[in-house]
This record gives sequence, C-alpha cells and structure tokens, in this order.
Amino acid sequence: VSAATRRVRLDLAYDGTAFAGWQVQPGSRTAQGVLEDALSRLQGGGAVAVRGAGRTDAGVHARGQVADAALSTELDDADLAYALRRMLPGDLRPLAVRTVGSEFNARKAALGKTYAYRVDLSPHADPFRARFALHWPFAFDRVRVEAGLARLPGRRDWSGFAASKCRVRSRVRCLTEARIAAASADEVTFVFSADGFLHHMVRNLVGTLLAIGRGQLEPEQIDRALSARDRALAGPTAPARGLCLERVVYPAAVEPSADPH
Amino acid sequence: VSAATRRVRLDLAYDGTAFAGWQVQPGSRTAQGVLEDALSRLQGGGAVAVRGAGRTDAGVHARGQVADAALSTELDDADLAYALRRMLPGDLRPLAVRTVGSEFNARKAALGKTYAYRVDLSPHADPFRARFALHWPFAFDRVRVEAGLARLPGRRDWSGFAASKCRVRSRVRCLTEARIAAASADEVTFVFSADGFLHHMVRNLVGTLLAIGRGQLEPEQIDRALSARDRALAGPTAPARGLCLERVVYPAAVEPSADPH
Repeated sequence: VSAATRRVRLDLAYDGTAFAGWQVQPGSRTAQGVLEDALSRLQGGGAVAVRGAGRTDAGVHARGQVADAALSTELDDADLAYALRRMLPGDLRPLAVRTVGSEFNARKAALGKTYAYRVDLSPHADPFRARFALHWPFAFDRVRVEAGLARLPGRRDWSGFAASKCRVRSRVRCLTEARIAAASADEVTFVFSADGFLHHMVRNLVGTLLAIGRGQLEPEQIDRALSARDRALAGPTAPARGLCLERVVYPAAVEPSADPH
Repeated sequence: VSAATRRVRLDLAYDGTAFAGWQVQPGSRTAQGVLEDALSRLQGGGAVAVRGAGRTDAGVHARGQVADAALSTELDDADLAYALRRMLPGDLRPLAVRTVGSEFNARKAALGKTYAYRVDLSPHADPFRARFALHWPFAFDRVRVEAGLARLPGRRDWSGFAASKCRVRSRVRCLTEARIAAASADEVTFVFSADGFLHHMVRNLVGTLLAIGRGQLEPEQIDRALSARDRALAGPTAPARGLCLERVVYPAAVEPSADPH
C-alpha cells in the first residue's frame, strides 16, 4: 500500500544567482523545478506540485521563502528534512520541514512579506558581497533617500512602481514598512514589508530611491509617480542581485506549533 | 620619455573560490597572476613583479592581503586605483593603492598576520555563507573547543601543525591570538594571529579543534602534537573555503600616512 498523502510546509533559503527565478519554466533551472524534482524522487516518482508564497524573479534570493506540497511518503518530518538536505544543491536549502493542515496554502495564507535590498556603497566592490548586493559606487545622500522612504508607507495604488507587464486586477497594496534597516559607511540595506508586492515593485522603488540619493530625481518624484500611476515617472529597475525575500508572515493560527526540523 | 618607476602598495580583497591560490602558476588563474597582468597592461606592457605578504592556498580568501610592485606609470595613486577597479575582475578587488618608499617589501616588512576561519554550524547549510565558510553540521562542544584554543598561544615549534611538505628552516612562530571571535547558535568564527604561519597551519589547527569539539580528540591532543612535533598526532586539515587572510600588520613607520585611494 502506498503512504498516505499529507501536506508539508517547506521553509527555504536560496542563492538566486544560478536560478531562472522561482517558478517552473521548461528548459530552465528554477527553484520550484529543482524542489519538485527532489520531492518526486523522494517519494519514489509521481509528479509533485509545489506552491510558493512568492514568485521571485531570476537572480533574486530568498532567506525565508515558504512553499507547500502534498506528499506521499512514509518519512516523518525529521527524516524528510534530512533527506532533502542531502538531495538539494548548495544554493537551495531547506530550513524547516513541517506537516501542516491539509488546507494550508503558502501563497493564499500569507498575510504579508518582507523583502530586503542590499547595496554595496564601497568604491572597490566588496567581493564577499558581490553575489548578494548591488554595487553602487555613486553619491548616496541618506537624507534625501530618507525623505523618499518617508513618502512610501500606506495603502495605495502602486501602478507607478509596477512592471509594465504586470497583469493583476488590483494594484492596491498596503506597504507597512519602508526603511533603511542597516547601514555603515559602505553598505546599506533597505527593508520593505507589505501585504503583497506587484511585479518589480521593490526593485523599482530601490532604483528610484538610489536615483534620489544620487541627485538625479527629487524625493517628490515619488508622489508624482504614485498619483499619476505612471511607471515612466519613477526611476529605473534596480538589478535582481540585491533583492532577497526575507520573510513570509502567516496568521498565528496556521503557524506550525511544533519545532521545525 | 617613460614614466619614473615608483613602488606601490596594494591592499586587496579576494574571493578565493575561483583562484588556484595567490602565487603565479603557469596555466592556472592565480590572484598574483591576474594582478600582474592588469598592472602590466596598465603601464603599457612590460613584466610587473608583484610581491604578496601571504601566499594563500587555492580556495583561501583574503579581506586584507597586502602586495607591492614597482610600476612605471604617470597615473597618480587615485587614478591608478580607479583604473585597477575597472580592470580587475569581481573576485579580486583593490581596496587601497598607495605610493610607498622604494624599500617597502610587503612580505619582509610584515610583523604579523591575522587569519579567520568561518564555520557554518546550521543543519541545513546556509547558501549565503557557502562560499566563505565550512559547513559543519556535527556536534560542536564549545567548552571543549575553548579548552583546545587555550593551549595554543605562545612562541613554539609548530611542526605538529605544519603540512608535511612544509620546507622552512625554522618552524618556531609566536601565536598571539587564538580565539572564537564571533559565534551564534549556528555560526562560529575562529581568529588566529601570529608573527607568521607555517603552510596549512591554520587549517590544521581548525581541523583539530573541530575534532575536539565533536568528541573525536581530547583537548590534550594539542599538547601531544606540539611536544612530539608530529603532524600525525593532530587532526585533519580543514577545507580551504572557510579560511580568510584578514589583516597584515606592519610597523607604524612603514604604514602609509596618506589617505588610501
């Protein structure tokens, strides 16, 4: 007899450098694809559909991606975690594996997400941050950047900062956090939290903030792009390498109570 | 007329992953080789001999390697730094470029060096530390490791921790620092400072300390390896990826006083 099917929540970290993003694409190496292959082998064959909370783009990293899948395996969570650690490559790592209620859906249950964007301000480009930060050896006027950040939090239509190819019904999202979380003379980390993000939204915000910090745009330009809902009024899209999905937030009721494996 | 020759000190950082070590080897990509090629092109041809303070092995990183070279170029230090930043690859970066006295020799003038060795103790292997830390998902008893570290500082013969192929006249070195500099539940950084290190010395010390922390060796084994001067009594050589040349110390008299470029 085959093992009963159960739903498993997977917390994941990945270095996005060598992935064509999260979502499965035929012929490309994606995080979802590599994970589905491993889970399929682990349960002895048969397709496995993994649902991820955030569809990160090519080159974007994750420290706290959350996914779920229905699995037929007799391995308990601890053994499943152990097996996955051995099967998955060094750039896609399982942080926790937990059986959850059959109704759990990593994407639909998410209340919000937090993204970080790391910038290396050093003149020389630190080789130890190269994979995970944008090198920006230009002027960075923090007072101007803070003036831009202060304009962002709130529930509003973010069309001005969405990719032009973004196709969603509503572009209203509630941004609850937009700040510089860590900074030194040669490094800055932006943090953004919201109940959801539009495609390229964080990268467009960062590209605009960097242009403001360099003196190419005024902080007020953010208000103009927002009120006109016009992507052309905002700054350029910052590169993927600095972006990282840090955390997905769920209601306490669906947070697993057991210790993670 | 050609530009006058002057001696330049170069402070460097590199990700050692894709280098066959510091020292030039025909047919291999080495940090010294890449740097000599760039400097030669920069001065319009002619061989350039770069001297490095530490000959790091294949896969070993550096945050504070120091080198020197005699250059014939009309570029001043600031323009030289700018040009090198543009010419050198992302995994070999110039931190500072300064004209020094013609007698400066990065290797001979060094009073000492500091190395760090980073260990990822997480069960899952953090993808963001993978290039720069050893993944060690085994028991790590910090009390035992500290008992081992406490045995190390002092001026002594380090034959017990030198590579068997190590060929130097004297194996006496003064180790002034051997400690855990930073630690969390899933990470530890060892720091070692000495007036000099033998080949593989830090990696052999770390391999022995990890074996002690895992319960495979007793802390007293360090005394035995030292007093017998027998490499076979110490633990295995830890992998290169966790090791980083952090700093080279010079007498105040030869430290450049000008602002670095």
